[in-house]
Amino acid sequence: MSNTKVLPLLEPEGNGAAAPCCPPLTERPFTAEEAETAARMFKALGDPVRLRLFSAVASHAGGEACVCDISDVGVSQPTVSHHLKKLKEAGLLTSERRGTWVYYRVEPSVLAAMGRLLTAPTAA
Amino acid sequence: MSNTKVLPLLEPEGNGAAAPCCPPLTERPFTAEEAETAARMFKALGDPVRLRLFSAVASHAGGEACVCDISDVGVSQPTVSHHLKKLKEAGLLTSERRGTWVYYRVEPSVLAAMGRLLTAPTAA
Repeated sequence: MSNTKVLPLLEPEGNGAAAPCCPPLTERPFTAEEAETAARMFKALGDPVRLRLFSAVASHAGGEACVCDISDVGVSQPTVSHHLKKLKEAGLLTSERRGTWVYYRVEPSVLAAMGRLLTAPTAA
Repeated sequence: MSNTKVLPLLEPEGNGAAAPCCPPLTERPFTAEEAETAARMFKALGDPVRLRLFSAVASHAGGEACVCDISDVGVSQPTVSHHLKKLKEAGLLTSERRGTWVYYRVEPSVLAAMGRLLTAPTAA
């Protein structure tokens, strides 16, 4: 039903687990390919409304939310849906339709991979 | 000489230390103000060339680099300077002129604040 390409921020491993795409930003200069992948994720979060929606989903009870749950950021429901779709396209959210509503969820492993990018170097 | 506004991703505290602007994205929905601050930072990293340059500075020996050190990402030196200026405007880099060159540095406290935003919730 959807032809959304999920970006390989997490590359599936043989055992079904996922490995982060990229080392911490402080470890070594990123390759062009790593930068493409990670920049797309940062860009998706680089809009204040989208970031509020991402935060609303990420902090919602049960770790998931539908549009009906998070319509209080001052934009219309179609706009909310549009932004959630963008976050999904960037690989930051997954979605599942149940009855009338589509429920969005942040994958903890994606959050962990994003956090790893920003790991500060350990003191020498 | 510069009228660059440093964004308050880190708000100075009385004791000279800096406090992060925002809670983890999973803790509660961001306010509009928090989202504005954090989104500007994410947006600055949402360009592949800029992200490679940020990574080049962040991973450089001594924690700092000048344009002369990081000109191998396939863009001209003026373009490198332009992107470094954008990263500085977003509060992600600081700079200091020494002789001919401007040296850029990633503040570890900024990296830590960014990483904190992406902290995954602890398992319940």
